Amino acid sequence: MNANGSSEHGPRQGASPDSGSVGIVTPQDYTFGSTGEGIELESGTRFGPVTVRYETYGTLNAERSNAILVAHAFSGDAHAAGYHSPNDHHAGWWDSMIGPGKAFDTTRYFVICSNVLGGCQGSTGPGSINPETGKPYGLSFPVITIDDMVKVQCKLINHLGIERLYAVAGGSMGGMQALEWAVRYPERMRSVIIMAATSRLSAQAIAFNAVGRNAIVSDEYWNGGNYYDGDPPARGLAIARMVGHITYLSEQAMGIKFGRRLQARADFGFDFEDQFQVESYLEYQGDKFVDRFDANSYIYLSKATDYYDLGARFNGLEHAVAGCSSKFLIVSFSSDWLYPPYQSKEIVFAMMRQGVDVSYVELESSYGHDAFFLEIERQAPLVSSFLEGLDG
Amino acid sequence: MNANGSSEHGPRQGASPDSGSVGIVTPQDYTFGSTGEGIELESGTRFGPVTVRYETYGTLNAERSNAILVAHAFSGDAHAAGYHSPNDHHAGWWDSMIGPGKAFDTTRYFVICSNVLGGCQGSTGPGSINPETGKPYGLSFPVITIDDMVKVQCKLINHLGIERLYAVAGGSMGGMQALEWAVRYPERMRSVIIMAATSRLSAQAIAFNAVGRNAIVSDEYWNGGNYYDGDPPARGLAIARMVGHITYLSEQAMGIKFGRRLQARADFGFDFEDQFQVESYLEYQGDKFVDRFDANSYIYLSKATDYYDLGARFNGLEHAVAGCSSKFLIVSFSSDWLYPPYQSKEIVFAMMRQGVDVSYVELESSYGHDAFFLEIERQAPLVSSFLEGLDG
Repeated sequence: MNANGSSEHGPRQGASPDSGSVGIVTPQDYTFGSTGEGIELESGTRFGPVTVRYETYGTLNAERSNAILVAHAFSGDAHAAGYHSPNDHHAGWWDSMIGPGKAFDTTRYFVICSNVLGGCQGSTGPGSINPETGKPYGLSFPVITIDDMVKVQCKLINHLGIERLYAVAGGSMGGMQALEWAVRYPERMRSVIIMAATSRLSAQAIAFNAVGRNAIVSDEYWNGGNYYDGDPPARGLAIARMVGHITYLSEQAMGIKFGRRLQARADFGFDFEDQFQVESYLEYQGDKFVDRFDANSYIYLSKATDYYDLGARFNGLEHAVAGCSSKFLIVSFSSDWLYPPYQSKEIVFAMMRQGVDVSYVELESSYGHDAFFLEIERQAPLVSSFLEGLDG
Repeated sequence: MNANGSSEHGPRQGASPDSGSVGIVTPQDYTFGSTGEGIELESGTRFGPVTVRYETYGTLNAERSNAILVAHAFSGDAHAAGYHSPNDHHAGWWDSMIGPGKAFDTTRYFVICSNVLGGCQGSTGPGSINPETGKPYGLSFPVITIDDMVKVQCKLINHLGIERLYAVAGGSMGGMQALEWAVRYPERMRSVIIMAATSRLSAQAIAFNAVGRNAIVSDEYWNGGNYYDGDPPARGLAIARMVGHITYLSEQAMGIKFGRRLQARADFGFDFEDQFQVESYLEYQGDKFVDRFDANSYIYLSKATDYYDLGARFNGLEHAVAGCSSKFLIVSFSSDWLYPPYQSKEIVFAMMRQGVDVSYVELESSYGHDAFFLEIERQAPLVSSFLEGLDG
C-alpha cells in the first residue's frame, strides 16, 4: 500500500534500476533572491532567499518544448523517479509513471519535479536556516499557499529557460498546484493533468488536517516549533501521519488489506498485546514518517491545502478558469473520500461552462485517495494517450 | 450538533425541565460481588466487586413487564433523560426519545439506563479504586468486552426483579450491547432496537480508534495509565475525541454546519490566528470532553468495540442469531460512514435467513453516525410504533 507522496513507498522495483527506470538521478538546487527579495507571497510578504530542490528525467529538446513539470503531493519530494545510488532500494514516488516507455515517457519528454516551498526535502521551509539569524525559521517562516508554491516553481522553470511547458501534472496537493499553474500562468503550458485533487478542501478534510496539527503542537517536544536543537515532536507527527494514512485509503481497501486480522496472534489474548494488523501498520507508518519529515512542514503544508479555495479567490470557479487556454485531463477515483470525485467534477463543470478543453475520467478504484499512486495500469494509458494527443 | 453519547450534548430543552421531560432524576448505584467473585469476564478472569450506576424513568408495573433497558454509546452514561437538579441546564443524552409521550413513553414504560462496565461515570472502570490496593486500577483493570458489559447489565436487571424486558435498545456501542443481549439472553426480552450499530467494526473504524489510543498513550502525562494522582493525559484525550467527532458526522453535515468559514475573521490573515470554524469546534469538543471522561476508559471501551465480532464468535452471524426469539427493529442511517448501513444489513440478512422477526429501516439522513441522536422526528415514530405493535 502506498503512502501519499511518500518516496519510500513508491513502487519498489528491486534492488537495482530495471529497464524501465530513468536510472540513477542526482538532485539539483536552484537558489534565487536574497533577504527582502525573492518572491512576493500571497500574504503580501516578500520572502527570500529561496532554494528549490529539483530533479529532471529525460532530455530537454532543442526547442525547449518537451518539458513536463510534475508537482508532488503533501508528503512527497523532488525525487519522483529513478534511484539516488546503485544501492538505493526505493525508487522515486511516481517511478511507475515516469521513465522510458512509461506514461511520462522520458524518451520523449523532459520531466521536472521540485520539492515545494515550505517543504523539508531540500527546498526552503521552516526547518531551513534563516540567513538573518543563522537559526532555523521555525514558526517565523511565513505562511505560504499553493499559489506561492507555484510561483516558486515558475522561477525554476524560468531558470531552466523553458518558456512553455508541454504539461503540468500532479495528484492530490500536486493536482492543486497543477490547477493553480493553469489559472496563474495560462500561457505557460500546453496541457494540465490533475488527479485526485480539489479546488478547495471540505470541512471534513480540514478537520483531519486540524487533528494532525493538534497532535503535533500537543507533543511535549513541540516547544513552539523550536525543536531543531533537540528531539522533534515525533509522537505528535506520527499521530498526524496515522490520521493522514486513514484518509488516503478507502474503507474497502483497508478491509481488503487488513480486515480484522490480529498482528501476532490467531486469537484475542485479552491483554495489551492484542493488536489488529491495521493498528501496527499505522503505527509503523507513523514512526517511519518521523525519520523523513519535519513537523513544522507538516503544519505549513497542511495549512496551505486548507487555505486553498480557488473559487473564493476569483468569486467563483468559473471566473477562475475563464482564462485557461490549455488542454486539461482531470482524473478522479471513485473511492477517494478525501478529495471526492464530486470536487473534481466541480472543476470540470466550471471549465466546460467556459469552453475550456477538458477531458474527465472517474476511474473505478477501491484504493481511495492513494489510487493515483496505485491504479497505474488504467491511469498510465490515459496519461500517455492524452499527452500524445496534443501533437495530433 | 450532538456528540456520540455525550450527555452534555443532549438536546437542550432550556433551563428548566419542560412538559415532555421526566423531570429531576437521581442516579442510583448497585454493587455486587466481592474480590474474586463478581462476574466471569469473556477473558476468563473473574472480576468483582462491580458497581453499576443507573437511572430509571417511569414506573415499573405490577407485572414487571414494562421495563426497557437503554444502552448508551461510547462516551455516554447512565443519564439518558431528565435533569439532575432544578438548575441543571443539560438534559440526559437521549432526552428527546425518553419521556412522557416520547418514543420511549415513560407513562407506559419503565426505562432503565446504566453506565457500562469499564466506564467512568459511576460504574466500575479503570479509574475506580481497586479495593485490594486502595488505588485506582489503571491498566491493571481487566480487558472487558461488549459481552461483559451485557453480563453486568443482566445482573442489574436481575437485581431489579425483572424477568423479561419489554425491550433492549441502543445506538452505536449501545446497539452492539442490544444485539449482544438478544444473542446471550434471548428469553429475557420481547424486543430489541438496534440503531447505527454493527456486529463488527471495519478495519477503518478500528484504525480511528487506534489513532485515539495512540494520542492518549503518547501524552506526556499518560504515565502508563497511572495519572490519577496528577494531571491526566488531557491533550491526548482531546485529540482522540477530535478524531471521534469527525467520524460521528458526515462530510455533508460538517459542510453544512461549518463549510469553510473562518472562526474569528472574514478573510485570511496569513498567520497562526487563522482558524476555520470546524477547527475551533473540534478543539472545543476535545477540551470539553477531558473534563468528564477518563482516558483509561477511552482505551478500554474503544478496545471493547474493536474486539466485538459477533459472527466470528459463533462461526458466522447466522449461527449467532439462530436462537434469537425477540422482535427486532434495526435502523441505520444513510450517511453513517463509521458503522455504515451495509453492516446493519449484514445483521438483518442473517436474521432473515434464520426466520427471526426483524424490521429494518435505513433512514435517509445527512447527519452521519450521530443521526441516532439527531433524526428524532423520523426515528421517534418508528420506535414508538414498533413498541406499540408488540402489544397487538
